[in-house]
Amino acid sequence: MRDDRATGDWLAIDWGSSRRRAWRLSAAGDVVAAHADDRGVLAIPPGGFPADLDRLRGLLGDLPAIAAGMVGSNRGWIEAPYRPLPAGLSDLAANLAVVAGVRLSIVPGLADAADVMRGEEVQLLGAAAAGLVPPDCRICQPGTHNKWAQLEGGRITGFTTVMTGELFALLKANGVLAGMLDGEVSDGEAFRRGVAEGAGRRDLSAALFGVRAAVLLKRLDPADAAAFASGVLIGADVGPRMGQAPVHVLAGPPLGTLYAAAIEALGGRSTIVDSTPAFLAGMRTIRRLAP
Amino acid sequence: MRDDRATGDWLAIDWGSSRRRAWRLSAAGDVVAAHADDRGVLAIPPGGFPADLDRLRGLLGDLPAIAAGMVGSNRGWIEAPYRPLPAGLSDLAANLAVVAGVRLSIVPGLADAADVMRGEEVQLLGAAAAGLVPPDCRICQPGTHNKWAQLEGGRITGFTTVMTGELFALLKANGVLAGMLDGEVSDGEAFRRGVAEGAGRRDLSAALFGVRAAVLLKRLDPADAAAFASGVLIGADVGPRMGQAPVHVLAGPPLGTLYAAAIEALGGRSTIVDSTPAFLAGMRTIRRLAP
Repeated sequence: MRDDRATGDWLAIDWGSSRRRAWRLSAAGDVVAAHADDRGVLAIPPGGFPADLDRLRGLLGDLPAIAAGMVGSNRGWIEAPYRPLPAGLSDLAANLAVVAGVRLSIVPGLADAADVMRGEEVQLLGAAAAGLVPPDCRICQPGTHNKWAQLEGGRITGFTTVMTGELFALLKANGVLAGMLDGEVSDGEAFRRGVAEGAGRRDLSAALFGVRAAVLLKRLDPADAAAFASGVLIGADVGPRMGQAPVHVLAGPPLGTLYAAAIEALGGRSTIVDSTPAFLAGMRTIRRLAP
Repeated sequence: MRDDRATGDWLAIDWGSSRRRAWRLSAAGDVVAAHADDRGVLAIPPGGFPADLDRLRGLLGDLPAIAAGMVGSNRGWIEAPYRPLPAGLSDLAANLAVVAGVRLSIVPGLADAADVMRGEEVQLLGAAAAGLVPPDCRICQPGTHNKWAQLEGGRITGFTTVMTGELFALLKANGVLAGMLDGEVSDGEAFRRGVAEGAGRRDLSAALFGVRAAVLLKRLDPADAAAFASGVLIGADVGPRMGQAPVHVLAGPPLGTLYAAAIEALGGRSTIVDSTPAFLAGMRTIRRLAP
């Protein structure tokens, strides 16, 4: 093995609950190698983090690393305490949690009075740092737990978490809608009907049962049930948060496409932003500003 | 075994998805014996209904039976097609689905343009038939799938299903709130805080994630998380349906108590009605009116 340390390269890790993505970056910040796996925090047994990081270094290089996400939570390796709002990349860089003896620093999450995030803050702030979104804007970041964030002057000044993705997964796997939601979810007539239903016509818990009723009553093709249910959930998520300002949707397809479609269907404007360069830009800046 | 058939007794069965309750009633309608088990429709293997009914008759008597609930659904024994609204007990009695050769009739469910029910209709209409609620009233029937029904002249003229109980069960068993919701759920400060949150302050998907955030931020005692989350879900269920008219809550404790508390906390009035005599009254009337 070549002497990795002499290169000045380093590792940026997005270490979430169920997924892990990692990049080897050059000293100048260029991507040398990338890796993704399902070694999320919940897959790591107690005491298993050091060996798992060693294996990752075996793939990407024996290099110093910075990680963000649930790895810094109370279910992760060590806890990186939440930082208050407003927060920018310099606040994150100044409060890295250093895991002793393994050349790993963990980015803290953010909290306001009623909500928390871990991992998303790097993407959100990185998007602004990279010029992918304006320094003052509203960002929607779809995923298991969708984050709606307000940026002012390139700092996060407020956010709300919506459990949309998790609710869809729970309903798909268990309960009365299980077995009905295995069809393809894409933007189309059924999805748009769901968006309208979820955004306005009925409250979410009633609209969700309506999926089953609509199939039983043959008002909805079973093949369209997943798209309709996804529309109901995304409509209920987007509906209360529509406004005049355009929404920057920080997610790739298919989820970014669905949210953008829902926002437009409800009369808003949206721009899709790629989350990977946003994350890498955030991590580069954190590394540069770290003490 | 005595000759059951000579008694004129009969069986009334509330055969739901996961639970089954059955009563032996005299010709005059008095309860002779009662039985409850977990032989719900989902527990019966394909082709297993005849043997299961035989076992039930072994317990309660070899008698003619009338069943209501999911046993008449497309997942049940035979399908008893939904009846349209408005519907009264005479409409149900005139449209029983007879299972050939086993002395069993199944009560049909009800459907309007966007919603369905099976089993609840007997309780709702039976409550009015027994004088437990007025012939014109609004009834809330908490359970896995809460039903809000409008009665006019002793007939059901409209209803909405809300997935409140199922969502709580899904969140308790899986996902990011699993393990946080095992505490006791009772009416109290945490439940009331949840009701206010779910009914007004935030949309449901955001308020649910707020349970986790509140525990992480130490704004909510972990022991109170289940009560708070239940309050959020019930608040989101009750909130949009509050009005001037009193709500008749058709459920025993603890669920009836929680709904009544939420209704009162949101400025409404409620009366708790016992669902068992309502069901039996409905079944007695259906038997009397059956052709």
